[in-house]
Amino acid sequence: MPRYRITLAYDGTDFVGWQRQPSGTSVQGLLEDALRDLDQRDVTVVGAGRTDAGVHALEQVAAFTLGRDIGAAALVRAVNVRLPDAVRVLTAQPASEDFHPQFDSTGKAYRYRIWNGLVLLPFERRYVWHVPCDLDVDGMQRAAKMVEGKHDFAAFQATDSDTKTTTREVFTSEVRSQKYEVVYDVSGGGFLRHMVRTIAGTLVDIGRGRFPAERMEEILASRDRTKAGRTAPATGLFLVRVNYR
Amino acid sequence: MPRYRITLAYDGTDFVGWQRQPSGTSVQGLLEDALRDLDQRDVTVVGAGRTDAGVHALEQVAAFTLGRDIGAAALVRAVNVRLPDAVRVLTAQPASEDFHPQFDSTGKAYRYRIWNGLVLLPFERRYVWHVPCDLDVDGMQRAAKMVEGKHDFAAFQATDSDTKTTTREVFTSEVRSQKYEVVYDVSGGGFLRHMVRTIAGTLVDIGRGRFPAERMEEILASRDRTKAGRTAPATGLFLVRVNYR
Repeated sequence: MPRYRITLAYDGTDFVGWQRQPSGTSVQGLLEDALRDLDQRDVTVVGAGRTDAGVHALEQVAAFTLGRDIGAAALVRAVNVRLPDAVRVLTAQPASEDFHPQFDSTGKAYRYRIWNGLVLLPFERRYVWHVPCDLDVDGMQRAAKMVEGKHDFAAFQATDSDTKTTTREVFTSEVRSQKYEVVYDVSGGGFLRHMVRTIAGTLVDIGRGRFPAERMEEILASRDRTKAGRTAPATGLFLVRVNYR
Repeated sequence: MPRYRITLAYDGTDFVGWQRQPSGTSVQGLLEDALRDLDQRDVTVVGAGRTDAGVHALEQVAAFTLGRDIGAAALVRAVNVRLPDAVRVLTAQPASEDFHPQFDSTGKAYRYRIWNGLVLLPFERRYVWHVPCDLDVDGMQRAAKMVEGKHDFAAFQATDSDTKTTTREVFTSEVRSQKYEVVYDVSGGGFLRHMVRTIAGTLVDIGRGRFPAERMEEILASRDRTKAGRTAPATGLFLVRVNYR
């Protein structure tokens, strides 16, 4: 039976997240409903990673197996007409039978957008965290660099997590400012739950002068969640890309 | 009593338009409610022009008179905390007692955004018209130029309009393409109801090859609404700027 790999974008504002939940609308649930309607059988969709409620994706990757062959372009159209416009399939391609979007991935990139203007433009309100105070972008940039490399990120993990290892490798971690925005871009081999949002929250604490930039290294070394800053709101977070070999 | 002039941005998606209506949420109504709460008296807000239901504004201009003096920065903050985040006051300044945002204005600029990609990105869905077919942008550019100057724009007016004169002057009228977008920018001394959206709809008909570019001049000369293209949806239209001497 043919297996497909798709990329998709979504505005996470009105969803409970990627993963199907007992109640609320999830992206996985919407896709599975669309594919059941299309394929007239139950279809399981596997994603490259869960995104939390309110988190957006520029290019999430997912895979599923259908009962019949359907051309890639036709599949994109057929699924999109069955989805609300907050979720769009961008591309589809045939995948090998054993393709797994999460286990086969070699890394991911996320972006966290901070709106630093005094007034938040209405058009950006669903896609940024509004932080209207002065930010020391240089300090944030220095602190961001400190998380690059292989570290135990236990200090930046959601408190209710239960993973075997909290060691992850961050490839790049950069802050830049452009006009009214401060943008945090991070890529790595894998991420703990809430890791990007907790790093972003800590960076903002550093930017506001609550912590010196050097504190980032101490927090990392402490492996203690209570030392890090607040978890930045989901609204500013985008899954940008999932990498494969 | 002190009069103020403000600029404001809004996402028009969920509103019945600028003007207060018997039912539904209007931008004028939200501002008047916020100012009544602030000033503890009824306040009338006058705008530079009505925008229709679903139309957005990057910089609408409005004016009102308050019972007491309040600093401009404090006014921006005080009004914004009383507004939903789909409407934001950007700036405020004292205005002369007789300042009228509409009658004193020397012109306006609008932008109409067309999303020409095959798949509409979720983040753009509230702010564009999705036209996923091939568009002859050169033809649209030539046709757009034909409406520059002083003309009788009766062919591009909403059928239910009742204005004294349908002659208006268009200063600039330009189409450009950038990546997945085709953007129509138009500025003029004044606009009839639905004029920008009907020109945009006609430009898309030209872009799709339904009309040749030269048809724009014939439609204009006909002064007959039935000759022009469809009224493009409100979702792609932005009031960009209101000009004053």
